[in-house]
Amino acid sequence: MIGVAVVGYGYWGPNLVRNFWETPGARLISVCDLRKDRLTAVQSRYPAVQITDEFEEVLRDSRVDAVAIATPPAAHFKLAMKALMAGKHVLVEKPMAATSDEARRMVEEAARRRLVLAVDHTFVHTGAVRKMRDLVENGLGDVYYYDSVRVNLGLFQHDVSVIWDLAVHDLSIMDYVLPERPVAVSATGMSHITGEPENIAYLNLFFDSRLIAHIHVNWLAPVKVRRTLIGGSRTMILYDDLEPSEKIKVYDKGITLNGDPQRNGEKVYQMLVGYRTGDMYAPHLDVTEALARELRQFVDCIERSEQPIADGHAGLRVVRILEAASQALAQRGRVIELEQARRIA
Amino acid sequence: MIGVAVVGYGYWGPNLVRNFWETPGARLISVCDLRKDRLTAVQSRYPAVQITDEFEEVLRDSRVDAVAIATPPAAHFKLAMKALMAGKHVLVEKPMAATSDEARRMVEEAARRRLVLAVDHTFVHTGAVRKMRDLVENGLGDVYYYDSVRVNLGLFQHDVSVIWDLAVHDLSIMDYVLPERPVAVSATGMSHITGEPENIAYLNLFFDSRLIAHIHVNWLAPVKVRRTLIGGSRTMILYDDLEPSEKIKVYDKGITLNGDPQRNGEKVYQMLVGYRTGDMYAPHLDVTEALARELRQFVDCIERSEQPIADGHAGLRVVRILEAASQALAQRGRVIELEQARRIA
Amino acid sequence: MIGVAVVGYGYWGPNLVRNFWETPGARLISVCDLRKDRLTAVQSRYPAVQITDEFEEVLRDSRVDAVAIATPPAAHFKLAMKALMAGKHVLVEKPMAATSDEARRMVEEAARRRLVLAVDHTFVHTGAVRKMRDLVENGLGDVYYYDSVRVNLGLFQHDVSVIWDLAVHDLSIMDYVLPERPVAVSATGMSHITGEPENIAYLNLFFDSRLIAHIHVNWLAPVKVRRTLIGGSRTMILYDDLEPSEKIKVYDKGITLNGDPQRNGEKVYQMLVGYRTGDMYAPHLDVTEALARELRQFVDCIERSEQPIADGHAGLRVVRILEAASQALAQRGRVIELEQARRIA
Amino acid sequence: MIGVAVVGYGYWGPNLVRNFWETPGARLISVCDLRKDRLTAVQSRYPAVQITDEFEEVLRDSRVDAVAIATPPAAHFKLAMKALMAGKHVLVEKPMAATSDEARRMVEEAARRRLVLAVDHTFVHTGAVRKMRDLVENGLGDVYYYDSVRVNLGLFQHDVSVIWDLAVHDLSIMDYVLPERPVAVSATGMSHITGEPENIAYLNLFFDSRLIAHIHVNWLAPVKVRRTLIGGSRTMILYDDLEPSEKIKVYDKGITLNGDPQRNGEKVYQMLVGYRTGDMYAPHLDVTEALARELRQFVDCIERSEQPIADGHAGLRVVRILEAASQALAQRGRVIELEQARRIA
Repeated sequence: MIGVAVVGYGYWGPNLVRNFWETPGARLISVCDLRKDRLTAVQSRYPAVQITDEFEEVLRDSRVDAVAIATPPAAHFKLAMKALMAGKHVLVEKPMAATSDEARRMVEEAARRRLVLAVDHTFVHTGAVRKMRDLVENGLGDVYYYDSVRVNLGLFQHDVSVIWDLAVHDLSIMDYVLPERPVAVSATGMSHITGEPENIAYLNLFFDSRLIAHIHVNWLAPVKVRRTLIGGSRTMILYDDLEPSEKIKVYDKGITLNGDPQRNGEKVYQMLVGYRTGDMYAPHLDVTEALARELRQFVDCIERSEQPIADGHAGLRVVRILEAASQALAQRGRVIELEQARRIA
Repeated sequence: MIGVAVVGYGYWGPNLVRNFWETPGARLISVCDLRKDRLTAVQSRYPAVQITDEFEEVLRDSRVDAVAIATPPAAHFKLAMKALMAGKHVLVEKPMAATSDEARRMVEEAARRRLVLAVDHTFVHTGAVRKMRDLVENGLGDVYYYDSVRVNLGLFQHDVSVIWDLAVHDLSIMDYVLPERPVAVSATGMSHITGEPENIAYLNLFFDSRLIAHIHVNWLAPVKVRRTLIGGSRTMILYDDLEPSEKIKVYDKGITLNGDPQRNGEKVYQMLVGYRTGDMYAPHLDVTEALARELRQFVDCIERSEQPIADGHAGLRVVRILEAASQALAQRGRVIELEQARRIA
Repeated sequence: MIGVAVVGYGYWGPNLVRNFWETPGARLISVCDLRKDRLTAVQSRYPAVQITDEFEEVLRDSRVDAVAIATPPAAHFKLAMKALMAGKHVLVEKPMAATSDEARRMVEEAARRRLVLAVDHTFVHTGAVRKMRDLVENGLGDVYYYDSVRVNLGLFQHDVSVIWDLAVHDLSIMDYVLPERPVAVSATGMSHITGEPENIAYLNLFFDSRLIAHIHVNWLAPVKVRRTLIGGSRTMILYDDLEPSEKIKVYDKGITLNGDPQRNGEKVYQMLVGYRTGDMYAPHLDVTEALARELRQFVDCIERSEQPIADGHAGLRVVRILEAASQALAQRGRVIELEQARRIA
Repeated sequence: MIGVAVVGYGYWGPNLVRNFWETPGARLISVCDLRKDRLTAVQSRYPAVQITDEFEEVLRDSRVDAVAIATPPAAHFKLAMKALMAGKHVLVEKPMAATSDEARRMVEEAARRRLVLAVDHTFVHTGAVRKMRDLVENGLGDVYYYDSVRVNLGLFQHDVSVIWDLAVHDLSIMDYVLPERPVAVSATGMSHITGEPENIAYLNLFFDSRLIAHIHVNWLAPVKVRRTLIGGSRTMILYDDLEPSEKIKVYDKGITLNGDPQRNGEKVYQMLVGYRTGDMYAPHLDVTEALARELRQFVDCIERSEQPIADGHAGLRVVRILEAASQALAQRGRVIELEQARRIA
């Protein structure tokens, strides 16, 4: 039985608490937050759980084997490092840290102490994203493009741009689904409130192959959109996370080349390209709650000394891209190379 | 009565012929194409119309006041210049020319000879786009962003990239709808067939204000999408051209600032932003066929010596952006300034 | 402060408990259920709430002013009557009772004792249905038809047909929204499992005016549909409960009569009818949770000795129609008159 | 080469003319209409085709082997009988005739003279409906229900109710797709214009098996809907004719019975029913224009002395149901038996 403490009971913390409460193999020991009203809420719902506003108290508690950190990102590094140094396994919210340097030091600390360091990339535990990975590996052919739109109205943040808030989801999904890692990134965007971070942004990700990726994130859209297109040489995928049941559609569509483009290329207006239009199908998806699945895996990894799907390295790769995208954003779309991320991966 | 000749009876020419045939004030004199089978098709449908495979014959015909050019873009410049020099008014397909230099010379030639030079930016004559312009002028407030997705499977072209084929529509709509002109452009994209032009591309357009524009075009998508979002400080527009009747939706949505962001900015996590969510409405749209409306306007402009909505200057502005986008595309997204376009506009 | 007991903690009971827990003016005293495991679940979530498997204990408790009954429908009558006779106000799940005779006796008992008898017609407390009622009263003109489709896969029930399970929602909405009461009903349907009640059914409701109503309910549909059309002489409404935000759309559409149909009727193929197609709009809806709103109203009614929107009479009218529809169903669609219901209303 | 004359050049006639013009094996000889302006329109488009306002002239023309009748339904019988008696093969618009007696006499006359009598049930020649028939035969299992919604705004007709105008499509599709013929029909509906036929109607069709069918037709709906659900014991079909490409969706969904319902039936609230939720797929459909395919088949049948898919018997079965539905409509939904239709089929 793994003893768990949840730190931060704001927007996401209650989901962690509710799920840890029901995770086989886990025992929820305590919840830590700076705000009294939140601790009172915990107490009335979970009277058996200890509450505290002192993080050090959590660390001192020998019943606590693992700490789940759901505070604002700026605090992730400090809290996670303290927890690791106290010998606790760590699950940290995404983005894993505020800088890639912080993320790297967290990865190193966990490795040194042989502790599990997991990042809460919740989407990679959904039935839809897991099916996508399976489809990309088996049947899509060469991956041509990955295009995601994630827009809605709100919630504007003060300390980070829309990239750190919304694109982080796409980057964590791509990290899990795609067979390649990006080598460079560029981004453009705009803030429409003076003095505030960008509320709309477009990211380009470049790869060594012909794969191209693009992410559109926007806090100021009149409609909510969560749509990803993945084009392959054999099939293509449409992933619409707002569809109630058919979130993934697989299209047996594409092009076929008739003849040798090199030889025929100069003959203007001659069609070399044929279009293939076959069936579409929407595979049945596992509907287990992603977070339940993720927490069970976190507990299993601790027990078996294994690495989770979304480990510190995955978290670092995502932060490295976010960081580079922010640099690009500040320079009206200049392309930023990602060598370091490549080396680590 | 304005005598009209249509040059080029391939993909779009038949639409011009059918509509000129029924345009009050126009008389369709002749159709010119290099291919016999097409001319035969014209003859069987419109026995009263003269057919020819010699462009010079069209120019010599004194009954012909205006020439509509629907050939591949590479031939636009040569044919249009000859027509103008023969004293004919010209309607030319989009993109107006293969280079901005060509487009500029066409504009100058038409101006010198006081002839009407119209570009067939068909979309600006649709009820939907005209309504959008009206909405942007009246009620949208400051324009924050313009975001368009125009993707489908096919038709791949050999001589031009997907930008010249698909983004040309968005650029012509933006030129008509937006109150500002872009000052710089960047673009990324990829070709997935060796030796062929880009089949997927993303364009960014920069403006002097906080307006940002973005266009996603793709010949290799499993689904057809024609969706534009326009965000304003007061209302927001969703334009979905595939909706059978409610193509334009206007959302009374947005943000409101509570307090002074300058003073409160440092207080981390404090919400300054309020969200406004009101009614949505879909205005009834004029359903006149856009091309019919456009041709009637072309004829009217000739008769009254007026300039059409989409004149040579509009065509040139669009070509200038396409040209800059192609330069950007070749340099992995480098930002290209558009000073010249600004000067002319 | 009104003391409340919830009886039945199966599918719907937990929602009542959660909402009563947070209803201002209400104090949740106890929860009663026959199953131990359910009572244990209550205890772990709400340690301050008393649990019991004896209904009589609830009735004896003088702190309990009102009883909310969420058991299977067959038990509603017996439990509600006992509660009323013990001087408790009652909120009962829909359908209110298994027969109209039972419902009528409940209404009479509550009236005799001047107790509040409310029926949990939850939908009439949603923002969407309240807006519909407002629209029907103001602007729709004469109501021409009410057409509802409520289909999905599952949950099959053993003791009642799909009418009692799904159409009860539509009937309660119609009772609230329409300006008229039906005078007759017919129904057809089919069971596809030997020995089980009908899993698909179609109801027709007849009115004294030209209004016609129709409900399609189905437990065996591949897709989930929740769509209601209301046609009026001036505007028309589409209510799609599965739309995330634009649940209600109002169409400024209809017909206009040109000339006198009496005089022109015999002239075959002459068009008298003109079509009016104006704007569509989707009003912003109140998003308060319906059950929260309903329970607050229930408590208010007790305190002020008022009648709730969905009182025993409303519940009885709905049961009377369900009963008649069941008779019709058994006779392949014979029309059943609803005189008694009319008298009571 | 089969010589063809088209009679009636109103709403549908131009489609017949255009398609016969391009049907291999057919030669369009003449077009007949009472209105001068329509004949002029034919002449300007098809100068080689003869025009006339005298039907007798068509019949006398020995080059004419077959007559396609696209007049208002009231005239079908008289014109078709004359054509048959003149030895011409006949293709007649739907509904085939104004009464089942007329339809029966047409069938008999064609049989006596060994002429092809085809009814223009266009939908049965679409890729979508042909695929549905294939799916129903192979894989759907027992057919449980057939449910169709066909509603829109307009076009109101004076001489026939919405059933004859819209439900005729569903009845012709059902006749082709279902393995059984209905044995009885009932219908309810309403007219909202004094003195005019019903503009909204609901049809129930009864079968000897557990199959149940239902059709909702409406000229006064704010939105256009063309949706059919077919439920089977193994799979289920959603046919949405307004979907641009995925018109047919096949759901691997349904119920499974756990245990013996006879033995377990009395145990209230015990679940016998299990739900099966598998993949959905949308088969690629043949996109040949239905009318082109139909006319080619008509010509083939004449040449080979074969019967078309939609022959006079099919037309008669549909008219018989329309007739019975009209009787039912006039009696507020009384069930009308269809013995005669059964006998003939």
